[in-house]
Amino acid sequence: MGDARPIGVFDSGIGGLTVVREIMALLPNESIVYFGDTARVPYGTKSPEVVRAFALQDTRCLMKHDVKMVVAACHTASSVALDDLKGAFPVPVHGVIEPGVRAALEATRNNTIGVIGTRATILTGTYERKLTALRKNVRVESRACPLFVPLVEEGWLDGDITRGTAAIYLDPLKEKGIDTLILGCTHYPLLKSVIRDFFGNGIRLIDSAEETSKTIRETLQSNGMENPARSDPERLFFVSDIPAHFQQVGEQCLGMPLGSVHQVNLEMDEMSRGRNHET
Amino acid sequence: MGDARPIGVFDSGIGGLTVVREIMALLPNESIVYFGDTARVPYGTKSPEVVRAFALQDTRCLMKHDVKMVVAACHTASSVALDDLKGAFPVPVHGVIEPGVRAALEATRNNTIGVIGTRATILTGTYERKLTALRKNVRVESRACPLFVPLVEEGWLDGDITRGTAAIYLDPLKEKGIDTLILGCTHYPLLKSVIRDFFGNGIRLIDSAEETSKTIRETLQSNGMENPARSDPERLFFVSDIPAHFQQVGEQCLGMPLGSVHQVNLEMDEMSRGRNHET
Repeated sequence: MGDARPIGVFDSGIGGLTVVREIMALLPNESIVYFGDTARVPYGTKSPEVVRAFALQDTRCLMKHDVKMVVAACHTASSVALDDLKGAFPVPVHGVIEPGVRAALEATRNNTIGVIGTRATILTGTYERKLTALRKNVRVESRACPLFVPLVEEGWLDGDITRGTAAIYLDPLKEKGIDTLILGCTHYPLLKSVIRDFFGNGIRLIDSAEETSKTIRETLQSNGMENPARSDPERLFFVSDIPAHFQQVGEQCLGMPLGSVHQVNLEMDEMSRGRNHET
Repeated sequence: MGDARPIGVFDSGIGGLTVVREIMALLPNESIVYFGDTARVPYGTKSPEVVRAFALQDTRCLMKHDVKMVVAACHTASSVALDDLKGAFPVPVHGVIEPGVRAALEATRNNTIGVIGTRATILTGTYERKLTALRKNVRVESRACPLFVPLVEEGWLDGDITRGTAAIYLDPLKEKGIDTLILGCTHYPLLKSVIRDFFGNGIRLIDSAEETSKTIRETLQSNGMENPARSDPERLFFVSDIPAHFQQVGEQCLGMPLGSVHQVNLEMDEMSRGRNHET
């Protein structure tokens, strides 16, 4: 029994490596194929139609590697494209929204949950719909934080500017008395300490990457799909562009060396190993 | 004599509309076709190879509209792709770098010029090379300001966060004693007052959009390519995505209503009028 095929993970860029890091920690035997659409990042500022088309293309890239499961490690794609992906491919498809939703409902004591994310994620209202579908009387307070991703990518994980920006974005949520906050973007866990300092110790921060890896483990276990092999699992990283600072930001997300990264030509719509970038 | 064909202008997104605004002000008789690659914006964080491929594709889109001239109204594309474009198409191609370079050399009194732009623009060193090619002993101080574009797109054109960020980015340039600063990104003119306040009145700010429109006028006049028609010129706007906030940010850049905007499917590599968005 079992299934030795890799888990496929895609994201608009490299933020989804925070999800890969959690999968590696929780499921060290599993092989992983990652695709980051770095040539078209970010998705959070684009229309749902375009994000849906991109997500389908990203998933087709993963399917060529015979993955046993697809993880949309991108909140924007999970918000707008998950149903399209589930209908289009013959493997289980997971997003990063529902695991955080369930964890937040378990965590809250006063039934008042905050959600922060990109403008696109918040505009879709997906978190609010999924939270209230599972618990009708839950209060949900949402806020787009468009500057958090650029701040993380600039490496300003602390300091006056980042703390001041956090205060502007988060103050309305504090006033509403939230006791639980869903970090609805793969980059936001890197701002955990700034966010925790703003709210104080009473806040419960929900890290979607952690919760998603638990959901993946449940799916693998309940379907007998775990990798039976004991040997070293394979980790393959594909991106549609390799820009400056790629290695630095990527290793910051992954928390370890990236290893070998391959570039894909999306216009050809196939994973080419033509240009390798050994890091 | 003259040439009634439109001027083609492209940008990674809608920031290039600041260039269109200046062309319309200086050359009100000229028809304009604009293409903004909003599905893949921004270019400033991507590799030169990918930016070059995108810029060629953008220009092919414009050429289908029989333009008499192509303007790369994007500093990143102008930095890395201008020579490729000049060789590939049978019309004059202008970027937004050289007009600013010439204006800065005319403006400086102490021969010390600052340049700010996206990380990609600054990393290429294009401004520095072009400035020192025209004047060997000029001192050039460059600084990437990656948070300026997200701040403008968030609408934070003033306030503590924007002023604090500007101080962090610009302080090293002030210390070097620059008396002239090239705003090397289409979004930056919207931060003019914050930048001027930081430096004080002694600074000369070079707005590339203004300078580029002057260069375009010179080229048209010296080649007898001005539009001889007296009737209302046509302005066509094409984008590869129409996201939320598009109209608001677009009209902020253009300083007037956008009119009719058409969406292009880049995968089809042709300008489709299938989805119109009347604004």
